[in-house]
Amino acid sequence: MPDRYDVVVVGAGIMGVASAYYLQKNNPEKRVLVVDRYGAVGQGNTGRSNAMFRNTFSSSDNQILANSSIEFYLHLQEELKTDVGLQAIGYLWLMDEPQLVKSEPFLKRMEGNGIRTTRYYRDDLRRRLPSMVMELGGNEVAEMIGLPDVDGAIFGPKCGRLDPDKLARFYADEFVKAGGKFAFNSNVKALLVGPSRRLGIEGEPLVWQETKFEGVSLSGSAEQTVLSDAIVLASGAWLNEVLEPIGIDGHVKAKKRQLFSVYAAGRAMEELLHARGFNRLGLAPMTILPRAGVHFKPVSEENCFWIGCEDEINRPFVDVPEHDLDRYQAENEYYQRSMLPVLSSYFPDFAGAKMKAMWAGLYAYNTLDNLPFVFRSQNLIVVGGDSGSGIMKGDSLGRIVDSIYRGEEEASLFGEVRYNVSKLGFEERDVEPEMWTL
Amino acid sequence: MPDRYDVVVVGAGIMGVASAYYLQKNNPEKRVLVVDRYGAVGQGNTGRSNAMFRNTFSSSDNQILANSSIEFYLHLQEELKTDVGLQAIGYLWLMDEPQLVKSEPFLKRMEGNGIRTTRYYRDDLRRRLPSMVMELGGNEVAEMIGLPDVDGAIFGPKCGRLDPDKLARFYADEFVKAGGKFAFNSNVKALLVGPSRRLGIEGEPLVWQETKFEGVSLSGSAEQTVLSDAIVLASGAWLNEVLEPIGIDGHVKAKKRQLFSVYAAGRAMEELLHARGFNRLGLAPMTILPRAGVHFKPVSEENCFWIGCEDEINRPFVDVPEHDLDRYQAENEYYQRSMLPVLSSYFPDFAGAKMKAMWAGLYAYNTLDNLPFVFRSQNLIVVGGDSGSGIMKGDSLGRIVDSIYRGEEEASLFGEVRYNVSKLGFEERDVEPEMWTL
Repeated sequence: MPDRYDVVVVGAGIMGVASAYYLQKNNPEKRVLVVDRYGAVGQGNTGRSNAMFRNTFSSSDNQILANSSIEFYLHLQEELKTDVGLQAIGYLWLMDEPQLVKSEPFLKRMEGNGIRTTRYYRDDLRRRLPSMVMELGGNEVAEMIGLPDVDGAIFGPKCGRLDPDKLARFYADEFVKAGGKFAFNSNVKALLVGPSRRLGIEGEPLVWQETKFEGVSLSGSAEQTVLSDAIVLASGAWLNEVLEPIGIDGHVKAKKRQLFSVYAAGRAMEELLHARGFNRLGLAPMTILPRAGVHFKPVSEENCFWIGCEDEINRPFVDVPEHDLDRYQAENEYYQRSMLPVLSSYFPDFAGAKMKAMWAGLYAYNTLDNLPFVFRSQNLIVVGGDSGSGIMKGDSLGRIVDSIYRGEEEASLFGEVRYNVSKLGFEERDVEPEMWTL
Repeated sequence: MPDRYDVVVVGAGIMGVASAYYLQKNNPEKRVLVVDRYGAVGQGNTGRSNAMFRNTFSSSDNQILANSSIEFYLHLQEELKTDVGLQAIGYLWLMDEPQLVKSEPFLKRMEGNGIRTTRYYRDDLRRRLPSMVMELGGNEVAEMIGLPDVDGAIFGPKCGRLDPDKLARFYADEFVKAGGKFAFNSNVKALLVGPSRRLGIEGEPLVWQETKFEGVSLSGSAEQTVLSDAIVLASGAWLNEVLEPIGIDGHVKAKKRQLFSVYAAGRAMEELLHARGFNRLGLAPMTILPRAGVHFKPVSEENCFWIGCEDEINRPFVDVPEHDLDRYQAENEYYQRSMLPVLSSYFPDFAGAKMKAMWAGLYAYNTLDNLPFVFRSQNLIVVGGDSGSGIMKGDSLGRIVDSIYRGEEEASLFGEVRYNVSKLGFEERDVEPEMWTL
């Protein structure tokens, strides 16, 4: 491996490979290297993700970033015939009346940005989801929890699931075809900071010197220093690991999130998996229950549902997370105590469902507004803070990173959408905070 | 010690004791307890601080918060005859022409908010600081560093130093007189989070339950649980220590900062210490040099100058800092390499000055805008992020904490200044970022 590149991208998750692809494609004369501590692309939290996508957010910025990326993924799958495992099954938010009322201003904002949603009433739901219990009166568990009845739902049709490995591999393959290089099994130990003008004295850079980033030092299969004119840091939950030692705030907090896969055994569960009336695939949509963001999605090729929920206060942040993701295990009792009582109140057939698998990964929260950021510090560009919705915005974020690298004020997102890149920085941050809880 | 209070305040630094004082004074029927891991008030970073004050900031919010607090401290010292060691020596920013131009919009904003500054020209400075070298041509070190000439200065008269121990003890004494209690040598191990409505089932609070804060668990001399209806967290650099385990972002990054005390030996240094023309005390002002924020202040009672500088990139954040502040030592070579070449270029007499003492403490930076925050999460109020200027805003912040506790939209700062408390939160944060580098 040569020891000098024009750009080093740290991290081969979705944000890293999408950034690398656009950097190499739009700057073909530059030599771009992606380094990652794992042995292939998407082996960190990208591969552990639920990999859902939606264009339904309260924030116009999130709407634009996601919608344009989804358009690109649809273009890939449907026009370019590149399989990224995309299934537009839709998202269904089951709500009680107060939640429906609360969502109205967000739905209006979506409408204004051309994002379509459908309101379902009780009868619509009863017809499409006959096994769902909408009125919980008489259910002791539900009454103890204080679960609300289902009074209706919001349905987002341009939402669904995709395959994060296939998507990451698409970007990686195109990046390599354009001339880019990967260094796997290479852990970035440190970002190298040097003086803008080296004087040859001890301890440089000293406080009175201007500084710049000089490259990265690696451990692992390639124990070496790689110099570069620019660095793109896309290491997700691990941003702080290399930024804290040099006194830059990574603006992320990492938290464990868990997914549980259960078999759709028995006729009622199979009928739910293949619920009709939501999409052309004849599958249940991603379905979100009215409490704690408990949700399930159909994974028909495994005859399973994947189940998750939203964490609020009282689950820890891990500030500089361990490298070894096996350190973060899913907890069966978390499923039993925290998800199942909610899930089985509305969908009783889940009560006896057999578990197939469970796993955990890390969300990288931007706690400020739950939107991603892309900021520049000298010749370092940092992208992250996706707060659990990075895959669905990866294409837009990759294009924005490239625009910032090239000094452009606006990025051109897929579908000729112009987006002012300074909006996602911190100095002139100008985004609508995300308020739509899953 | 009883095991139930209305409010527990965590931290007996300046922000903790000021908050406790206003809480107890304005809510005399409430039982307020302050806990701290040290044996007395102000023993953490408050006592290690440079304890300077100024009303000169680029941010109107900082101007208001500091100016009102300074007015209160002046009122204490001059009208109530409570000695808080206040010396209004002034701040003097030495600048080159580009810096002077850059400061103009900030000076305009100050003027609009009634904050007076004076522009000094070269002759003004030559007369008042005869030992200062303003033209550095021919100085090899200065040329290597690239230090600018001094073309003028901005002087802030309502600025100076105070005694942080005396100020903290004032608030503590008044708090106790009003009925408040202290528990020293008591380390808060955890904030206790419970369900809003306890059901008596295992693992509460579960994800589907609403939560509230129930109190704190202590180790140290009082190994116990203290229950409370509200908690005020004012633990400065240690906010993350108890917030990360419950998944709340403390929005601070802690960084070591260092101070060096050198003797004013010899006639030139003594004349500098007692420079005339800046204040009624006949003392040099706090003087800030045109590079890296290198600064000195006169400490006449010790016949010393205290010297510090501003850290930029390449000094680490310590995310959950050690309790033992002795872990953070000042580094003589940092003074020799990073401060002295700048300092002695403008003031050559410092070159041979003998060091009396050096020490270090932690700044708690709010990296977002370098302004303090006061935010509420259920029945928890968090105050911090002062970014090194907490003592000079402590009185205002204490009043704001009390206003938030009492559910008021506006706080009444000293001098009948109204301030909307939601401006300092994160949900509706609405502050001008601080851009005036020391």
